[in-house]
Order: sequence, then structure tokens, then C-alpha cells
Amino acid sequence: MKGHGGALTTTTPVRFNLETLRSRESELTAVHEGFRSARLSLDLTRGKPSPAQLALSDDLDAANGPPAAADGTDVRNYGGLDGLPEARQLGAAWLGVRPDEVIAGGNSSLTLMYLYLLNAWLHGPAGPDTAWRASGPARFLCPVPGYDRHFAILEDLGIEMINVPMRDDGPDMDQVEEHVRTDASIRGIWCVPKYSNPGGQVYSENTIDRLARLATIAGPHFRILCDNAYAFHDLDDEPPRLANIMDACRRHHTEDSLVLFASTSKVTRAGAGICFMGGSPATLDWFRRRLQVVTIGPDKVNQLRHVRFLRDLDHVRDHMRKHAAILRPKFDLVCRRLSEGLDGTATGTWTTPRGGYFVAFDARPGLAGEIVRLAAHAGVKLTPAGATFPYRRDPDDTNIRLAPTFPELTDLDQAMRVFVVCVELASIRQTLANR
Amino acid sequence: MKGHGGALTTTTPVRFNLETLRSRESELTAVHEGFRSARLSLDLTRGKPSPAQLALSDDLDAANGPPAAADGTDVRNYGGLDGLPEARQLGAAWLGVRPDEVIAGGNSSLTLMYLYLLNAWLHGPAGPDTAWRASGPARFLCPVPGYDRHFAILEDLGIEMINVPMRDDGPDMDQVEEHVRTDASIRGIWCVPKYSNPGGQVYSENTIDRLARLATIAGPHFRILCDNAYAFHDLDDEPPRLANIMDACRRHHTEDSLVLFASTSKVTRAGAGICFMGGSPATLDWFRRRLQVVTIGPDKVNQLRHVRFLRDLDHVRDHMRKHAAILRPKFDLVCRRLSEGLDGTATGTWTTPRGGYFVAFDARPGLAGEIVRLAAHAGVKLTPAGATFPYRRDPDDTNIRLAPTFPELTDLDQAMRVFVVCVELASIRQTLANR
Repeated sequence: MKGHGGALTTTTPVRFNLETLRSRESELTAVHEGFRSARLSLDLTRGKPSPAQLALSDDLDAANGPPAAADGTDVRNYGGLDGLPEARQLGAAWLGVRPDEVIAGGNSSLTLMYLYLLNAWLHGPAGPDTAWRASGPARFLCPVPGYDRHFAILEDLGIEMINVPMRDDGPDMDQVEEHVRTDASIRGIWCVPKYSNPGGQVYSENTIDRLARLATIAGPHFRILCDNAYAFHDLDDEPPRLANIMDACRRHHTEDSLVLFASTSKVTRAGAGICFMGGSPATLDWFRRRLQVVTIGPDKVNQLRHVRFLRDLDHVRDHMRKHAAILRPKFDLVCRRLSEGLDGTATGTWTTPRGGYFVAFDARPGLAGEIVRLAAHAGVKLTPAGATFPYRRDPDDTNIRLAPTFPELTDLDQAMRVFVVCVELASIRQTLANR
Repeated sequence: MKGHGGALTTTTPVRFNLETLRSRESELTAVHEGFRSARLSLDLTRGKPSPAQLALSDDLDAANGPPAAADGTDVRNYGGLDGLPEARQLGAAWLGVRPDEVIAGGNSSLTLMYLYLLNAWLHGPAGPDTAWRASGPARFLCPVPGYDRHFAILEDLGIEMINVPMRDDGPDMDQVEEHVRTDASIRGIWCVPKYSNPGGQVYSENTIDRLARLATIAGPHFRILCDNAYAFHDLDDEPPRLANIMDACRRHHTEDSLVLFASTSKVTRAGAGICFMGGSPATLDWFRRRLQVVTIGPDKVNQLRHVRFLRDLDHVRDHMRKHAAILRPKFDLVCRRLSEGLDGTATGTWTTPRGGYFVAFDARPGLAGEIVRLAAHAGVKLTPAGATFPYRRDPDDTNIRLAPTFPELTDLDQAMRVFVVCVELASIRQTLANR
């Protein structure tokens, strides 16, 4: 799963090494200066679909028809906090739950995540006695590196975030279980189970099973916030299979601990799609009572348009293969440039995701911020160092999130050439400074 | 502005009156029984547009075009918390403010109202020191009768609601000023300045000016939440003019105290339109920082569709005249049936709105619940008594909200015939019981 830069040979005499390093540093500094004078303006920060991907869904606008849902609902009028039955049906297949375990929402799954956490904090996930704000300090487990917007919600509510390292098969479950066993203030955990943001890891069946068991250790009010943002966002024709999380919870009788989220933002239109929230009937009953204070209901016109366009999961998968055809060359290019530029330099490791929207690069400790700064000087904007960690603090200052989806291939190529130069330059300067 | 049932003559001998009343009670009871056996199923609860009104905007779907906003923004992609420039332009004209004083949002202005109040409570409207949750009891002034969803937000946040009576020209400003002067815990006031829900009152220029002055009495953190839901929802060709509230605030240097809301829900599609929030640059800067935790941005595809369809305020007004042509006969019918059925019976008063979505009926004290119950037995569903008051408690049990927009004319006619019978029956029974 991980690529790596190998190890610098240690048998070469230090004096020779030093000269080589100094000469290489001069060389790279000149190349870097060259980029600066070329006045590039490239951007690898944005986890956004490219225009070519968005065009794949331009027939959405032609998917209008009679404004009536299957049950006769006039989608142009008020009503229906749960969303349309056919949208919930699609959501159920999407999330791997029953239709009565789904609410179909508006253009932002992030908003539903926010409202879930807000109301657990404000009103309690299982009645007023369970309100997080009223029961001492509240803490939340955050697999790192992770998604900044997940962390921002917790920070906004004053819920303390605790880092848990990501491994190739998901969060380090030994650490997760240890936290949950020894700290009664842990209220839940964030998860992106497939093609995790930013590393692209897919949770193993074992990880899923251990997550589903957590509420049996932590107690019935523990919550798994599972943002399955990249459920069908495969690059391969034979994609890895994610185990059904709700099924695992059913086995352990912990259905109430699971809250699932997904959206079509990276399937149809980013910020103009529809979203889904899944949970046990008890979870959704509680959430509906909270949600009705906030809204009369989602945009059902857009839900019907989406169901008519996407139809069912088979069609969704077909549609996502078209996305893959556009994205695969971009991810391949990123990994190729990293290998060509950094193999053998011992300057970092990176993930080779089989789907999702990002590649996670880990520089030598202490260098992520410097690399981002060097790249910015050379006209390449990178996600700020630390952004993938709670409180924007990467304790080792190593992680950099690369977002290859939006730029054109030629821009991406140029940006990656700059990136590897910045990585090597920062690394050599660090080596020289430490001598 | 108010219709009324007149006063029962008091010169008629009591004995004769009693017989007359008993005979009339029998007669009405029989009529009521007749309705019951007819098994009607009519609904006057819903402040929803009718299908004919919704059809006025069916060309929205044809208003798709190139997915680019005027500034080049690809509306199919992420970005732009403020909404599209052209949507903000429309919103500015709509709310009577500058474009930089508007955020264009998604399908629910209620959600923005909720988020505004939530964040004022959670984080403070002007920095952490001003958080309502951290500064003792928080109270809010609620003109009554009013809109249940406004009250539900305050109840959800545990903000105490204080009733202020509505008059023909807006809230009783003497009482409002007295509260604000004597109670430092008052944080703000809800307003529906034009065609107030449910009474249809339009705030006078004097009321607007006194509202704008409130922050000079209450202090700089006082907030007017102004839901201008019915800005163009006139029934007359010569509609009453609402004074510009932001201009009034500018005169008194209280711009930061005003937060404005509007939506196209009752212009284009209910629950599938776009919405606007207006406020001073300082207010919006603060709100943006809060909003970015909750969402990446509004559905810009729907915003562009709306701007292309509605174009500008002149076109909005033209469009609303088509709504008026559908609604005027319904409002006329309601008022005619009330006059024909109740004039001279001293059983209630009602408003005769010149726009908006409701007629407010005030029964004799103590009878609203009974009338709603009688109507339900006769197959006519009315908004629950008390719904128009904070905590669902109408202290005098008088107010009933009538919603004439959704039913067909024939159904509305039948429902109103039932209603006036229920009002007279309940009133006569009360009279007889008190003798």
C-alpha cells in the first residue's frame, strides 16, 4: 500500500556524502529558483471533481419529469422531513441498511454530521440525561491524518479530540479499545471507512468488527460517526470490498451506536447533490425530532432528479467507472512522479490509494510545513501542513495531503515536479543542518 | 383591518334570548352532525402553495443553461459560502440592502435562522464574551400570535419567550420598549414585518423606526430577527409599502442589530427554492465563520436556475401577480363566509389581510380549542389551538390560524361553512353554560 523513498546508503564516507549533498542542494535550489521565475500558479489543495467529471452528470437537468414521487408526493411543495421514498431506497442500498434506516437529505452531508454532533452535545443522543455538554468533559477519537471538516465540528463544540494513528487497515484498534476502556469521557469516533481522507486506506473486516463491538465496551451511548464519502469512488476495476458496518453492529446488538453518512457530491455535482444519513430506527426517530426544528425538509425536486438520473447502484457503479477513467491517469501520475523523484532518497513515504480523492505524503518529521512553504514560493499551493490533524497540529509535522483530482494532467505533472524538488530540497537542507 | 361579528343585542329579554339560543344550539348541533355523517376530509392547516401556484414556476427546469455564473464560477462544483454574486444581487434588492450585506443560501431560510440563533447562544453574536448561554438567563420577545417554527427554535435552545401583543401596525412597541428598558436579559425580538404570520399585519413606518432604535436602548448586542417571508406576496394591485428596515437602522447606527431573512419558497417551489440572509458586514463576517463549520456552501445550480427564471424584482412582482390571481378568490371566500356566518353573532373577530398566507381568527376567550375540536369531528382539520403562541399556550385560548392557500375553492368553501358553524355552536354552548 505504501510507496517509500528507500534508505540513503550509510556506507559512503561522510565527507564525500557531505560534498554530494551540498552540490545537490545547490542544484535543487537553482531548480527551485527556476520554478519561482516561471511564475507558476498551480493548486493541489482542492478535493474537488474536475470539470470533465462534472460534465458526466450534465444530463441531470434533463432528468426532470412530472413533479410527482412514486407515492404521489408533489416534490415542488413542502413536506417530508425524511426525503422521498425512492431517494431513501437508493440511500439504503448505498449505505447498506434498510430504507427505514435512512433519511435522504439536501446538498450537504456535512450539515447532517454537524447537526448530529450538535444535538448529541446539546440534547443528548439518547435523552436529556445523556447530553454531552452536561456530563463532564467530552472527548472524541480522531484517526489521523483525517478530514479537517470533521475536526472543525468537534472544535466548534468544544469537544476534545484525541489522535489515533491510521494503519493500512483502519484506525489502530488496539489504541481505540484502550482509550474506550480507560476513559469514560470518550463519546465516539470519526471514521471514513473506505478510501479514508487523506490516506486512502480501506478498513478491514476485522477493523469493522472491532468498531461494531466498541459500544459493548464503552456503553450504549458511544457513537461511531461513519462518513462513507467514497463508497463507489474506485480507481480499479476490481475494487476492495468494504464489510457492511450495520450488519456487524447487528451481530453485536450495537445498531444504535452507528451513524452513517454519504452524498452524491463526488458522484454528480459537488455541493449540489443529495445526501444520506443512516442509523437505527431509534437513532433516526431522535434525529427527526431535532431536525424538524432546523428545517421543513430537503429539496425533493433535486432528490427526484437524482433518483431518475442515478436509478440504482448498478447504474451508480457504471457512472463511477467513467469517473475512474478520468481519475486513474491523475493518480498514476502522482505516484509515478513521487517514485521517479524520491525513490532512494529516504525523504518520505506515500500512499497509493485504490480510490478516493487524495494521496497522503509523509515527509521526514519536521519538514511538512517547510515543504508547503517551498512549494508556495515555487507557485504550487498545497493544503496547509497540519490541516489533516485536530487543531491543525501535526505533532511530527510530516503529513501533506495531495489532491490530484481537479487539475488538468499537464498542470498536475508540473505541480508534482515542483513538489518532489521541494521535498528533496527540504530534506537535504535538514540533513545538512543536522551535521 | 379587522372584521368582527358585532355585538349581540342586549335589549332583548333574557328569557326569549335563552329560548332562541337553545333552539339555535339544537339547529347547529344537527347541522354539525350532518357534517360528521358526510365524512368530510378537509384541511385548513397548511401554509402551503397550491399545485396551481407551483405550476407557475414549472419553467424553472427549463432555466438551465451553461453551468457558469457571471463571474465564471462553475456552479456544479464546490465553493462559495456566500452564494453566487447574481443571487446575492437579487437578494439585496429583495431585502433592501447592499449586495455585500447578503448571503444567498439553500432551500431553507429556517435553517439560517436556526443557525443564527444557535450560534448567538453558543458562541455569542459579537465574540465569546457575548454568548447568550454564558450570560445568565436569555429571553426573547415574541409578538403573538406568531409563527410556531420561530418559537420552536427558541424553545429548543432554552431561550425564554415573552409574549408581546400584535397590533394592526406591528408589535405593541410601548410594551417592547418597556421590556427592553427594564429587563437586561432580553436578547432580541422576532418580526415578520409584512403580512405577519398569522394576522397579516404590515408594520408601520413608525413601528419600523422604533424597532431600529431598540439597540440604542438595549445595547449593541440586541438582535432583531426579521423574517420577511411575504415581501412580495400581495393580494392587492396597490399593496401596502413596507418601510426599509436597514435604512432605518442606518439612521440610528444600529445596522448590527438587524438580521433579515427571506426565501423563494412561496414564490417558486416550497422547500426547493433559494433563500437570503441579510445583515451588516460585521454580522455576515461573524456568521460566515460559523457557517463554514456547517456546510461547504449552498446549491449554486439551483441559485443560478432561480436567477435565470426570476431575473429581477420587476419580474418577481409580475410573477407574484399570477399568485395573487389564484389566491385572491380564496382569501375573499374566507372573509365572505366569516362575514355571512358570523356578522352580528359576537362570536369572534378576524383579520382581512392584504397579502401573506393566513387569516387569524380570534374566538371568544376559552373557545379556540373547542372550535378546533368540533371542526375535527366534522372532518375539517385546523391548526391546533395554541400553535401560534410560544410553548403552544394561548393564554386566552382565542386564536385560530386559517390557511386558505392550499385547498381548492370548493373544498375551502365547504371547510369555511363547517368552521362558522363550529364557531357559533361553541359560542352558544358557552353562553348557555354561563347562564
